[in-house]
Amino acid sequence: MTAIATRQAVDEQRLARAYLVRVAEPPAPALVAFVGERGPVEAAARVRSGDCPEKVRRETAARREVDLAERDLETAAKAGTRLVVPEDEEWPAWPLLSLAVATGRGVENVASPLALWVRGEANLAQAADRAVAVVGARLATNYGEHHAAELGHGLATRGVPVFSGAALGIDGAAHRGALSAGGVTVAVLGCAADVGYPAGHIDLLNRIAENGGAVVSEYAPGTPPARHRFLVRNRLIAALTDGTVVIEAGIRSGARNTATTAGALGKVVMALPGPVQSGNSAGCHALIRDCKATLVTSVDEVVDTVGRFGPAPEPENPRPRRPTDVLAPEALRVYEALLPRAGRSAEEVATAAGVPVDRVRAVLPELELDGFTVRGDTGWRRITRSAPR
Amino acid sequence: MTAIATRQAVDEQRLARAYLVRVAEPPAPALVAFVGERGPVEAAARVRSGDCPEKVRRETAARREVDLAERDLETAAKAGTRLVVPEDEEWPAWPLLSLAVATGRGVENVASPLALWVRGEANLAQAADRAVAVVGARLATNYGEHHAAELGHGLATRGVPVFSGAALGIDGAAHRGALSAGGVTVAVLGCAADVGYPAGHIDLLNRIAENGGAVVSEYAPGTPPARHRFLVRNRLIAALTDGTVVIEAGIRSGARNTATTAGALGKVVMALPGPVQSGNSAGCHALIRDCKATLVTSVDEVVDTVGRFGPAPEPENPRPRRPTDVLAPEALRVYEALLPRAGRSAEEVATAAGVPVDRVRAVLPELELDGFTVRGDTGWRRITRSAPR
Repeated sequence: MTAIATRQAVDEQRLARAYLVRVAEPPAPALVAFVGERGPVEAAARVRSGDCPEKVRRETAARREVDLAERDLETAAKAGTRLVVPEDEEWPAWPLLSLAVATGRGVENVASPLALWVRGEANLAQAADRAVAVVGARLATNYGEHHAAELGHGLATRGVPVFSGAALGIDGAAHRGALSAGGVTVAVLGCAADVGYPAGHIDLLNRIAENGGAVVSEYAPGTPPARHRFLVRNRLIAALTDGTVVIEAGIRSGARNTATTAGALGKVVMALPGPVQSGNSAGCHALIRDCKATLVTSVDEVVDTVGRFGPAPEPENPRPRRPTDVLAPEALRVYEALLPRAGRSAEEVATAAGVPVDRVRAVLPELELDGFTVRGDTGWRRITRSAPR
Repeated sequence: MTAIATRQAVDEQRLARAYLVRVAEPPAPALVAFVGERGPVEAAARVRSGDCPEKVRRETAARREVDLAERDLETAAKAGTRLVVPEDEEWPAWPLLSLAVATGRGVENVASPLALWVRGEANLAQAADRAVAVVGARLATNYGEHHAAELGHGLATRGVPVFSGAALGIDGAAHRGALSAGGVTVAVLGCAADVGYPAGHIDLLNRIAENGGAVVSEYAPGTPPARHRFLVRNRLIAALTDGTVVIEAGIRSGARNTATTAGALGKVVMALPGPVQSGNSAGCHALIRDCKATLVTSVDEVVDTVGRFGPAPEPENPRPRRPTDVLAPEALRVYEALLPRAGRSAEEVATAAGVPVDRVRAVLPELELDGFTVRGDTGWRRITRSAPR
């Protein structure tokens, strides 16, 4: 095909998918399989006419006569939103493959999306190439929001895109942390990209879209939020990232659902601990305790746990060292048998330390050379050292 | 052997072990193996004369001429301290077996103790039969001390003895929590039981010893604390319990050492999480993150994780006809010296029963555990039991 013919073909497919992505409420496993077999253009025609398998008919029966594809594409374009389809280079095919694999293994409610509405400057495939999701409670504490913002900032600083759900609380803090570092952050919504939900985050969503990030939704323009849509959306957050970090989550929470889904998709699941009396950390602690999540306390640990983001950096807090750390066990016993103010003979040290006197006689001069002891008129004394060698 | 001959033999062995437990600085794997081969009496004689393998000679060379066994036993007895030896029924043979097994597997520095100095009313074997260690930072926060006390209280309330190291901070809070619930708590020290260290815990140690618990040490009377002794002591805390809970520990800390040792001994290792910015929880988080410890946030989770503290199993023996049929002769005498309505002190019971007061002190808590006695304001009272367990 020529370039023009190719573009025409893709536009035809995009139009078909704009119809298909609205015709069934996601996830729609039968429709996804049907589109995979027939291609989007034929599948759309057959859905419209009802000439399709029974399971597909059931998924599409309620809306098959509603064809708003052209209008949706126009409405979206006016709002700066494009429909990204599997036929596009920007389609995050590799990360989303986890959904098809899990569906094939029998995991329910994780069918692939048929297309994704995207608003913003980010190339979705690039953003999802190596990314981390940071999710958590809406009614977060200062503790949780602080660490979500720190983690968002730290990941963005390392060039790791931060995905979240744009909810109040932890999600918003993670997005803001990434933005504050000038990084890429992606909000995946449980309503259309143009609905402006939650209302308190309309400005945040605009900043995300306009500062190198993206606002992503499976839902056609105008689709309102609904509880089941948040759960369905969670599979996209899990699929589009290498790992999910939960920061503050109640025992029953959407963030735990995202984490569980991430686990089912074979992604890395992490959780940040908190004070045990905080109900907001109970979901995190349960995930860690049940071995479903790895405990993380810093961006270094997140990067290390996901393990795909280049060599682990030097630890920020090297182990504290004591002067006596350099001493072998026997020498340490001799050293500790010395007194700081009164002298002791080698025999006295041997008895106190339980080390043979010939070894004590050998070790004491070594300790003296290294500045740990001094020999005086009354015997050997300990020198307390304040700084490591 | 007759009863008198048996007692004489045990006394001779005790004297030998009082010499042996001082002659080498623990852990002393060669000496422990030698005593296992030759028995304590012959081993002590051979160590004194130098007629022993080279490795044993090296462990004992510095102190082999120091025989303070009789003096140590007298000094200890005056302070209410007894030397518990493997030949005693009170010896916690089963829990300590983990040390011999680990030593056999090549784990270093976990040789069995040759004997244990014990001050207090608790029967050590019973206390260690199903116990949990709660350990942590000396420089603890209010957060850590609160949860250590809560956990100590909760375990004691369920009849689970609480072991710790009597250090300032977490250890002390755990002991106090157990005491506040009227439970058994055991302090295992890195110095002699009579040294009174740390100074700020002298009252606490006395309360532990006098309220059904025990102060335990491998070190002969007068032995001062030393850093290596705390590390060596940690193996006993780990071995004498079914599991260890770490509450607040820096990245380098004795509590982490206890946890690591517990793991090497095949015991359950647990850690309580905390705020991630708290350096005091960093050691706990590292243990959990490295999958060396299970995250716990409550006494329920600790009990669930250790998994041994359900309802007591049915006795294998056929049902006794009277409740007191289950009692050994000595315990039966103690029981019969109690009165149902008036309290008696241990000394009064000893006189009435014709049983040594130290044995009375050991037996009474056993009887209490089994529901035969109760301790009130005026002393110990008999509970008349109508049905066998």
